[in-house]
Amino acid sequence: MKDTAPPSVTTGPFPASRKVYREGSLHAGLRAPLREIDPHPSAGEPPVAVYDSSGPYTDPAAEIDIARGLAPARAPFIAARGDTEEVAAPRVVKPEDNGFAEGARLVPAFASPPRPRRAKGTAAVTQLAYARAGIVTAEMEYAAIRENLGRAAARDGESFGAAIPDQVTPEFVRAEIAAGRAILPANINHPELEPMVIGRNFLVKINANIGNSAVTSSMEEEVEKMVWAIRWGADTVMDLSTGRNIHNIREWIIRNSPVPIGTVPLYQALEKVGGIAEDLSWEVFRDTLVEQAEQGVDYFTIHAGVRLAHIPLTADRVTGIVSRGGSIMAKWCLHHHRESFLHEHFDEICDIMRAHDVSFSLGDGLRPGSIADANDAAQFAELETLGELTRIAWAKDCQVMIEGPGHVPMHKIRENMEKQLDLCGEAPFYTLGPLTTDIAPGYDHITSGIGAAMIGWYGTAMLCYVTPKEHLGLPDRDDVKTGVITYKIAAHAADLAKGHPAARIRDDALSRARFEFRWEDQFNLGLDPDTARAFHDETLPKEAHKVAHFCSMCGPKFCSMRISHDIRAEARKSGLAEMAEKFREKGELYLPVEP
Amino acid sequence: MKDTAPPSVTTGPFPASRKVYREGSLHAGLRAPLREIDPHPSAGEPPVAVYDSSGPYTDPAAEIDIARGLAPARAPFIAARGDTEEVAAPRVVKPEDNGFAEGARLVPAFASPPRPRRAKGTAAVTQLAYARAGIVTAEMEYAAIRENLGRAAARDGESFGAAIPDQVTPEFVRAEIAAGRAILPANINHPELEPMVIGRNFLVKINANIGNSAVTSSMEEEVEKMVWAIRWGADTVMDLSTGRNIHNIREWIIRNSPVPIGTVPLYQALEKVGGIAEDLSWEVFRDTLVEQAEQGVDYFTIHAGVRLAHIPLTADRVTGIVSRGGSIMAKWCLHHHRESFLHEHFDEICDIMRAHDVSFSLGDGLRPGSIADANDAAQFAELETLGELTRIAWAKDCQVMIEGPGHVPMHKIRENMEKQLDLCGEAPFYTLGPLTTDIAPGYDHITSGIGAAMIGWYGTAMLCYVTPKEHLGLPDRDDVKTGVITYKIAAHAADLAKGHPAARIRDDALSRARFEFRWEDQFNLGLDPDTARAFHDETLPKEAHKVAHFCSMCGPKFCSMRISHDIRAEARKSGLAEMAEKFREKGELYLPVEP
Repeated sequence: MKDTAPPSVTTGPFPASRKVYREGSLHAGLRAPLREIDPHPSAGEPPVAVYDSSGPYTDPAAEIDIARGLAPARAPFIAARGDTEEVAAPRVVKPEDNGFAEGARLVPAFASPPRPRRAKGTAAVTQLAYARAGIVTAEMEYAAIRENLGRAAARDGESFGAAIPDQVTPEFVRAEIAAGRAILPANINHPELEPMVIGRNFLVKINANIGNSAVTSSMEEEVEKMVWAIRWGADTVMDLSTGRNIHNIREWIIRNSPVPIGTVPLYQALEKVGGIAEDLSWEVFRDTLVEQAEQGVDYFTIHAGVRLAHIPLTADRVTGIVSRGGSIMAKWCLHHHRESFLHEHFDEICDIMRAHDVSFSLGDGLRPGSIADANDAAQFAELETLGELTRIAWAKDCQVMIEGPGHVPMHKIRENMEKQLDLCGEAPFYTLGPLTTDIAPGYDHITSGIGAAMIGWYGTAMLCYVTPKEHLGLPDRDDVKTGVITYKIAAHAADLAKGHPAARIRDDALSRARFEFRWEDQFNLGLDPDTARAFHDETLPKEAHKVAHFCSMCGPKFCSMRISHDIRAEARKSGLAEMAEKFREKGELYLPVEP
Repeated sequence: MKDTAPPSVTTGPFPASRKVYREGSLHAGLRAPLREIDPHPSAGEPPVAVYDSSGPYTDPAAEIDIARGLAPARAPFIAARGDTEEVAAPRVVKPEDNGFAEGARLVPAFASPPRPRRAKGTAAVTQLAYARAGIVTAEMEYAAIRENLGRAAARDGESFGAAIPDQVTPEFVRAEIAAGRAILPANINHPELEPMVIGRNFLVKINANIGNSAVTSSMEEEVEKMVWAIRWGADTVMDLSTGRNIHNIREWIIRNSPVPIGTVPLYQALEKVGGIAEDLSWEVFRDTLVEQAEQGVDYFTIHAGVRLAHIPLTADRVTGIVSRGGSIMAKWCLHHHRESFLHEHFDEICDIMRAHDVSFSLGDGLRPGSIADANDAAQFAELETLGELTRIAWAKDCQVMIEGPGHVPMHKIRENMEKQLDLCGEAPFYTLGPLTTDIAPGYDHITSGIGAAMIGWYGTAMLCYVTPKEHLGLPDRDDVKTGVITYKIAAHAADLAKGHPAARIRDDALSRARFEFRWEDQFNLGLDPDTARAFHDETLPKEAHKVAHFCSMCGPKFCSMRISHDIRAEARKSGLAEMAEKFREKGELYLPVEP
């Protein structure tokens, strides 16, 4: 790979932004990233710190070479715990791992993957095990630092029982993980990871899905999809690739990813048996779990909640089973007339997760695919099973989150959250949308962004994004960005409504900029400075307009905000508060109502 | 105008759609439009009726000539009531009405405007007056027919006290208007109108704003903006034009508009006094009201709630006064140190509204312009005043709706709705968004679509759209469409959540089409068939793919929905329900938890 061209992934900082690193106090050598946005000096305001999921790619000081991968900054912390070891005989890559791709069709293997590690003996090397043992890991401290953006004193909100502290301490992160209310997805084989935490008492997170296209994919293309998604704010990325080259592409992605990577191992297992659901077996699935755990996947979607008894409950649905994993397992169960191998071997799955600290994302294979099917018997029967599986996984020291719907009208969203908290012991909820109506194909980022904001407010810890292409086609670069920004909006609206103490800092800074006509600051403090600036340019392209005390809505002749400034000045000189009192006293001077 | 080129406004039907007209039973000659979407014959399903705001422009049988305007189909019903008469000496158009535009800069006057009418003597010719007198007008029957899309029996929802009937009768429309819970904006000088009703117990409506650009505008351009907005679903259109040619452009719009037109008369009054707020007077404002009432504007935003005592309450806000009308009036009040002429002459304003049946949209001049300012003392003080004004207007038989915010975080939205219902006696609420966060300039259709869906669910009767250009620039054609579709989504999500008995018909029809791989039906039943089809084409362009039993997400090899069909077939032959029972009985076969 030495002669490869410079990487084509997107790098470079955001405008007026600096990457800053905060060191830990418990763990030496720990540097957690934040982004600081600098308002214009004329504002006399401090920089605004924002959560930064984008990794070294937005750090001008970082040298990016995707053929080498990111620096394994987490490795010393893993090694220092002394409870893992290099696998003596790692699993060897098999032709079926890459769908038997050969020659020019085979994506080159990543040149120097780290040697896989696993737990020594039967040790639990999960963040949950450490948390329960009272250990505050480096990962926990790292995540805690990221959650504290510079907290405000004032806060108000309705948290529906969530208990977000004024200040997130490493100990708080530990306690939340120990209680099962949060997970810190961090495979010991993903040393490039910048640790983060997912839970109801933290900032709401978002996931973006990527995947190779059936036609053709280069490793740079696939790495760029991940880099692009995290640039705009994706907190985790799921690689849902199918077809050829799955193994090699995943290696490239993980080695270059600062965010947790999730997968649905069933997809690759199905490829290995030629796409025939009935031919799946525990042996093929188990082999796939080990393969991916050794590569460093941080969480697995496991559809063990699809039980034989649940399947008939879907027979009268409008849209049947729409989860790919759910329908694969349903078909397998029906064909073999028995409970799935996922359910029967759940205990062994836990052992693999425990030995690498892969977190469970218990899949909702029976999620509703339409408004008509929301909150039905099939969906909630599965959720009950997921609650039972959660307790089994917890008993094995495994970290667990629960996947949720789907398509749900607004009035049925809260019931989803309440049942999930109740049935799954407050394990973090991770929902797809939900879409609040079925009638807008082409706009399902919006139909679902509404539901996502609401369920995030009610307590969902992570929101899986939906792009405008949902139901219609494969998202391109613009769709991915639109999906991520839409979900950042939903997550942030939820943080505000929950009363997260730091959330409003950015809103207030941007609104002050807006009121003071600091146009550049308004762009730079927004989620997408490029688009905001481009929109402003369309009507008022000149540089002088970027400091103009008006905008194109009212034009220069009359501006409501400029008048507000006049009013404020007036108030200072003429004692308006007193005047207000005077008018309040004789306030009933309304016009007489004619009889 | 005879030699003018064919009109360039957008015409033509939606795909697979037929315009149908339903006749009334109380009023002969009444034909209310609906659109019926035909599923593919293979589906064996009845057509899906959808509300149709688009007017004759989507009727292939209609002859469109914007120089002649739409047919005044409503005129006979107005005339038949015998309580109005042609104005003996109509107001003459003055040079200042068009901003002193002359020669080539003057937009030509509409050739043959109808002669203005007004009430005979002091008669109240409002729909409210008729409703209170027990009269079911043609307009009420017309609106009732539109609301009934083909009702479903099953319904569920949480309506927060709204009481939507299974079937909307003309009498129900009358009763809701009589109670002040709904308005039917219908100026007697707008005979081209297709009447519609706005209220909490009807379908949630949306408004789109248009307005001339400062630079240049032709009348065709302006008419096309309105036609384009209603094509995608705008139920009313506000003309917020400023600058030159306001009068003539408005005439062109009204004569060609099947939907109610709203304005903010203050904007034109301000133009007449050269943009100097302090120079405004009751005389100029009154003259403008008469001018616009005689042209046929259906509702006026009147900022009479901005009282002198309220203004100091805004002094410590992050974003002061952001409403244009609010800041104009605040400046006037401060300058003259007295209550505004709107407030002092409110009684006379009512008389003008009453004589033409112009509905009040009581403006929220002090709405919050940022998350920080939401639900503050200034906002709610004004709302209290709006409640008082509502009762004055009602006493004059005037129809009233109330405008609402603005920027509000999710947890403070419901309080807005509850206070409005309480303070304003259930008069319809008409809100702008609200935006649920300030941090996404360029995406404020989405930040506000979230809030709009929620407040619509809680009871808001009409949602004023926000486009992606909000805060940044003037919306273009694409922005208008995006804003309208986003708000149709919000309104429909609200209808679903309220338990509107007809709302789910379209969702279910589209979901069945999705499940059965009727791609064309999926596109055609959606809010934007063009975009849905284009997105599908991007990945699977061939005509054969439009009947393919797979999509690009899973590809042909494996499709979850196809498996669902297999499962359904299996269920029919093997008695899955019984099998489910069997498994339920011995259901506790979960894996033992290790100690």
